[in-house]
Amino acid sequence: MSSSKHHLTEFLNSLYPLSSKTEELISQHSYTITLKKGAFLFKPGMDHRTLYFLVKGVVRGYRKFKGEEITTWLNEEQEMITSISNIGLEQECDEYIQTLTECELIGIAADMVEFLFANCPEIPVITKLLLEDNYRGAEERAFISRIPSAEDKFFRFVEKHPGLINRIPLKYSASYLGMRLETLCRIRSKRILTT
Amino acid sequence: MSSSKHHLTEFLNSLYPLSSKTEELISQHSYTITLKKGAFLFKPGMDHRTLYFLVKGVVRGYRKFKGEEITTWLNEEQEMITSISNIGLEQECDEYIQTLTECELIGIAADMVEFLFANCPEIPVITKLLLEDNYRGAEERAFISRIPSAEDKFFRFVEKHPGLINRIPLKYSASYLGMRLETLCRIRSKRILTT
Repeated sequence: MSSSKHHLTEFLNSLYPLSSKTEELISQHSYTITLKKGAFLFKPGMDHRTLYFLVKGVVRGYRKFKGEEITTWLNEEQEMITSISNIGLEQECDEYIQTLTECELIGIAADMVEFLFANCPEIPVITKLLLEDNYRGAEERAFISRIPSAEDKFFRFVEKHPGLINRIPLKYSASYLGMRLETLCRIRSKRILTT
Repeated sequence: MSSSKHHLTEFLNSLYPLSSKTEELISQHSYTITLKKGAFLFKPGMDHRTLYFLVKGVVRGYRKFKGEEITTWLNEEQEMITSISNIGLEQECDEYIQTLTECELIGIAADMVEFLFANCPEIPVITKLLLEDNYRGAEERAFISRIPSAEDKFFRFVEKHPGLINRIPLKYSASYLGMRLETLCRIRSKRILTT
């Protein structure tokens, strides 16, 4: 087994115990990749039938709307990653997934995930846990963007993702929070001055 | 079987074929309820361990933030409904689920859903399909609120949910879209005048 591929099986094992047979299948059929900052894990037209586990780094999901990039999600370590707006569907989507730092990931083909789902009894349980966790995360993203005050959005973001704001360019955090970059800069400076 | 309980098994069958044993179990352990407009299907402190299928009506999910109600989702017929921010968790959450019209629903206890998941091979497949569908919906809710222009938000909302805006008080659509009621009224009047 590759030295870093165990990160994925360790993560899955922490959710629900894997049999040694399932663990072996996952190790055999997954692969590690390292991507430089600014690389695309996915963009329209690319094969989206892969599921990734983010071992190290930060990744953002965004879509273009009238030429403007709208960041809908930001993920750090220990998260499963795939395009969301077409998850479970064969159809193309207009989502982009871009690394915001150098990233180390473990990939596994969607066909293999389907095979595991149908043949390893732990995988449906783990799939449910992961989808529920990600669904809760998406609900939080839907909530935070609707908080009326920009300051309140900022404080909730910092509370939910401590440190993330310092790992990535502020423009992406601003887009994620649905506020102008200048607004975020103003709130952040004020906070630094008062703490 | 009750005359309306078949709506749930029909819906599930349209996703993936149910065995007659599973269908029977679901029918035996589900129940229909009719709620008046403005009733609470769920609010903090109430038992959240129930999954509902919305046969008829419109329901909204909201949370209170600094005294203000923030609508994060709106569902019409043919949707599964439960509190999202604690889905899969035992913990309480601050979500409210309120009927916006008279509603007819079919309820099934989460413990029963768990039993079905562990004992009926179709249920993990259906659970995955439903969670993926709802995850895509939550991603759309995260996206629409981040569209910078209020007009663009409005048009996307009307495109994605034709007719919904006419079924519910405008203040809830405004909250869902993350804009002031006056802004929504202005855009809507303009649209009525130009079409």
